[in-house]
Amino acid sequence: MGRALAGAFLDAGVRTTVWNRTPGRDEELVARGAVSAGTVAEAVAASDLTVVCVVNYDAVDAVLRHEEVTAALKGRTVVNLTADTPDRARDAAAWAAEHGVRYLDGAIMTPTPTIGTPAGVFIHSGPQDLYGEHRPVLEALGGTHTHLGEEIGRAAAYDIALLDIFWTAMAGYAHAVTVARAEGITAGDLAPFAKGIGDILPPIFEGLAAEVDAGTASAEGTPLTSVASSMAHIVHTSEAHGIDAGVMRAAEGLARRAIGQGHGADGFIRVTDLLGRR
Amino acid sequence: MGRALAGAFLDAGVRTTVWNRTPGRDEELVARGAVSAGTVAEAVAASDLTVVCVVNYDAVDAVLRHEEVTAALKGRTVVNLTADTPDRARDAAAWAAEHGVRYLDGAIMTPTPTIGTPAGVFIHSGPQDLYGEHRPVLEALGGTHTHLGEEIGRAAAYDIALLDIFWTAMAGYAHAVTVARAEGITAGDLAPFAKGIGDILPPIFEGLAAEVDAGTASAEGTPLTSVASSMAHIVHTSEAHGIDAGVMRAAEGLARRAIGQGHGADGFIRVTDLLGRR
Repeated sequence: MGRALAGAFLDAGVRTTVWNRTPGRDEELVARGAVSAGTVAEAVAASDLTVVCVVNYDAVDAVLRHEEVTAALKGRTVVNLTADTPDRARDAAAWAAEHGVRYLDGAIMTPTPTIGTPAGVFIHSGPQDLYGEHRPVLEALGGTHTHLGEEIGRAAAYDIALLDIFWTAMAGYAHAVTVARAEGITAGDLAPFAKGIGDILPPIFEGLAAEVDAGTASAEGTPLTSVASSMAHIVHTSEAHGIDAGVMRAAEGLARRAIGQGHGADGFIRVTDLLGRR
Repeated sequence: MGRALAGAFLDAGVRTTVWNRTPGRDEELVARGAVSAGTVAEAVAASDLTVVCVVNYDAVDAVLRHEEVTAALKGRTVVNLTADTPDRARDAAAWAAEHGVRYLDGAIMTPTPTIGTPAGVFIHSGPQDLYGEHRPVLEALGGTHTHLGEEIGRAAAYDIALLDIFWTAMAGYAHAVTVARAEGITAGDLAPFAKGIGDILPPIFEGLAAEVDAGTASAEGTPLTSVASSMAHIVHTSEAHGIDAGVMRAAEGLARRAIGQGHGADGFIRVTDLLGRR
């Protein structure tokens, strides 16, 4: 991802200095016009803006939290596009404030090949004026950039919530194709129907928001009792084939508990009350 | 759902006799031209084709497995659109065969309001010639009808797999909006991004099929190690807010086990090997 970001800056004609933990990894970027820095301190001293994107905030800290790097960053801006938790973003902002480093947090919501293209989705949080100052350079990365608020953990919180939807859905897909295979159905056979089910999800995600925020959960023909029944069929069929059903067992547990609390006639979204206090 | 099916038959000009466990439930249908049967035996004796759609196969059995009903069904056809497991569909077919009842199994993949409209999605399994014979009447229900094979459990197996994708994804959405709320983000704020994440799922579901069937699992920039890291961030952030993360804990467990088996550089879909034998 780091290489894709640097490449997009170069393509946009932005003067770019690069540093990677593994020496030599920057050869292709240097051939495209990037300046290779020998040390992190040298890299951050080269520009007013440093963009960081590594595996997680432990890795960010390992790169930035050294005396000479901190000194070089003083008065400059870090835009941290690394994915981690909102808590870690707040911790990074506190460290930055302590050392006079200007700090913006962000997340990249789309895969590497989207960087530098209109398909990229970037979210940001932190001081509005600081974001405004660096926005033109960030926009060189292509795609859409949204400032979600001044609270520094906000971008990470959106990132967490959206990855939650994505990876849970992917766990469902992986499980579904495994159960289908055990029933003699290939993933290719299932594909057009799987796509059809996938197509109905985005409008549901969008449409349920008003209910979630209002605390309502209309069943619209599918009460929790019926959802729990479907879930039990999935668990039963999986396990009868020797297939782990841990994800669906956890989901069914939520549905059963909501029914046990008297919400059997409500829609599935009622489980949000049970997951977290309103 | 039963009322929607009967209503669609009536709208299409198909002579329709109705029966419901709760007397009086058929008043609106009778006003629209349906014949009300006093008993199940009377209902099934009125036509060559009986369509059944109740809560599950226990309910089907409670309706059909009586001497006078079985006798009335002899030589006639039952199309069972009730949702349950492939095993229960096979059991129903065995019962039908034993009693000289012609039997097709099916499932309805779309909600009640789609019945009688082009948006309805019906899947069927069982003897091809029997399906061919009743197809014109079934098509009066609107939407698309697909015969998935002669193996009687096939429609139920597709149903299970597709509901697996749907309800797992919904569990992810419910969890995501709960975590977002704890971080001060409303479901409305999240909605456009949630829709955006939803939009990328259908092509992924379709595109991964070839890999699943070939037993490959290319990471495409997101190896299992990185997936597990995202999942851990989600679990951590949820639980730090007191929010249950059972579904994601189960999904993360799969990712961690696949990594433990040496597949850390593979894509997430590698977990299918671990869920069920190839």
